[in-house]
Amino acid sequence: MIQIDPILKKLQENFAAHRYGTHPTELYDPIEYIMSLGGKRFRPLLTILAASLYTDELEKALKPAMAVEVFHNFTLMHDDIMDQAPLRRGEQTVHEKWNANTAILSGDVMLIKAYELLIQVDDHKLRNVLERFNVTAAEVCEGQQLDMNFETRWDVTEAEYLEMIRLKTSVVLGMALELGGIIGGADAASKKALYLAGETMGIGFQLKDDLLDVYGDPSKFGKQVGGDIIANKKTFLLIEALARATGPTKAELHHWIEAPTFDKEEKVAAVKQIYTKLGIQQLTEEKIAACFTNGIAHLEAVAVVPERKKPLMDFVHNLVNREN
Amino acid sequence: MIQIDPILKKLQENFAAHRYGTHPTELYDPIEYIMSLGGKRFRPLLTILAASLYTDELEKALKPAMAVEVFHNFTLMHDDIMDQAPLRRGEQTVHEKWNANTAILSGDVMLIKAYELLIQVDDHKLRNVLERFNVTAAEVCEGQQLDMNFETRWDVTEAEYLEMIRLKTSVVLGMALELGGIIGGADAASKKALYLAGETMGIGFQLKDDLLDVYGDPSKFGKQVGGDIIANKKTFLLIEALARATGPTKAELHHWIEAPTFDKEEKVAAVKQIYTKLGIQQLTEEKIAACFTNGIAHLEAVAVVPERKKPLMDFVHNLVNREN
Repeated sequence: MIQIDPILKKLQENFAAHRYGTHPTELYDPIEYIMSLGGKRFRPLLTILAASLYTDELEKALKPAMAVEVFHNFTLMHDDIMDQAPLRRGEQTVHEKWNANTAILSGDVMLIKAYELLIQVDDHKLRNVLERFNVTAAEVCEGQQLDMNFETRWDVTEAEYLEMIRLKTSVVLGMALELGGIIGGADAASKKALYLAGETMGIGFQLKDDLLDVYGDPSKFGKQVGGDIIANKKTFLLIEALARATGPTKAELHHWIEAPTFDKEEKVAAVKQIYTKLGIQQLTEEKIAACFTNGIAHLEAVAVVPERKKPLMDFVHNLVNREN
Repeated sequence: MIQIDPILKKLQENFAAHRYGTHPTELYDPIEYIMSLGGKRFRPLLTILAASLYTDELEKALKPAMAVEVFHNFTLMHDDIMDQAPLRRGEQTVHEKWNANTAILSGDVMLIKAYELLIQVDDHKLRNVLERFNVTAAEVCEGQQLDMNFETRWDVTEAEYLEMIRLKTSVVLGMALELGGIIGGADAASKKALYLAGETMGIGFQLKDDLLDVYGDPSKFGKQVGGDIIANKKTFLLIEALARATGPTKAELHHWIEAPTFDKEEKVAAVKQIYTKLGIQQLTEEKIAACFTNGIAHLEAVAVVPERKKPLMDFVHNLVNREN
């Protein structure tokens, strides 16, 4: 049975050896930089593991899997400009380390380089791969635009929020899995099931991010606990709290949201208490569990013998149970 | 024999009818906007005319030709952010009319939409089309980066400048022609010749832009004559003048470049006089003529009967002789 560690090692070696371009260095250095910041590489691993359901020639999935990761990092580089984020994985963002123009242009060429990696598939799979990638890539931009639109709105509904995170983050996970299926030679129903598994679980992962920001164990969670509360970020928890709070609880929530200055720890504790009072933690946990259950059901529907499916299933269960 | 006007009309109808996406409108409105600002559409016309060397099924070239124009406008949208340009074709740029974030994200999705149009070719041509497009698109980014690098350098050589404009503007013309050749079914030598024709003439077009900025007829030239001089833009003319000026002429040129405040008309007249004294006009005209001669020689090398080639040749000769 295939193992994750050697696949991840192979992937990391390929990223380390990959040259995106040489001249001018101002254009290509930021790509090397953002790719060197790490990340769990779980999108390309999903592609390779999905391919492994059908084939032992995992080499064939390597470059397209890398395309997914390069695309993902392109979106991070551009999103960080738009969000004016100073840090990414604890290091300076590209627009901070260089400048916004460099981050725009390096990001542009990264998207092109993602296509260069993506087309390294067999001829008869090329169109399918491109069509799915194009649709997904456009959806990610749509999700980012919706996310920006939501910043100035206080009436975002649960349905709107779920649609935004579906577009911004989940469709790439669906595409990553489907891409592996295409490369492996999956039938149409299995490709669709792989896509839906990734898309559905992706929503669960984002909701879990939202949840861990408030209820995560500070010793395990990579970021500052309560960061979303401090920034008034419209997470699933805040949207649900805004929809459910009434009377003095509503007034208190709005007080903290609108407070121009505040003690950070005090705000986090107070908003967390409101969430707890409104049952937001349980509500979110139930939603997450439903996403994971549905997502795994889609994976189970993929017509492949269980032994063959075990590495992907194990990997997905690990993702589902992570605490950071 | 095919005529340009009906082809251009067909192209414009297709642009007018094409929907890039619908939701969210903040993402897609800027694309509709920049595409509606017009432009001569000569890149997609080159693609269609190149395809017409080999086939009468010009419909097959339409979508990929549009891809080239959408790609070109994507680069304009992002370049305008980087250059902080307030106007494009006399109208507000996207980042001015909306904001920089919108221009970044709409531009990103435009590039993806260019790929969607591009892949509408026969299966057996898809890889060739994508490979050429990917290389060219990355080169355009490289050219834009070099152009930005040159802003803070005063020792840019003629060779460096020519390489920058080759990457930033000419390779797309080469690719536009080659793309038509691929779609039409050209042999390898003819595809290469079409590419080189576009690339070589493209350098000539950019040099002509540089020349017309100074020596153009204000009644025909679309922009303010002398705009490049006022902005100290490092054009072919300025680079040649900097390399050739000595003694008092050199001092005078540097005086105008470094003057913090100046009368615009006076500066344009003075620098123009320096160019004339140094023989820059003739030098530039000779370089342009050489580009056009070499470019047309590449077109003549394309193995197609002259009657078939006439529409493309006539179109190219019109481009070569334009005064705006």
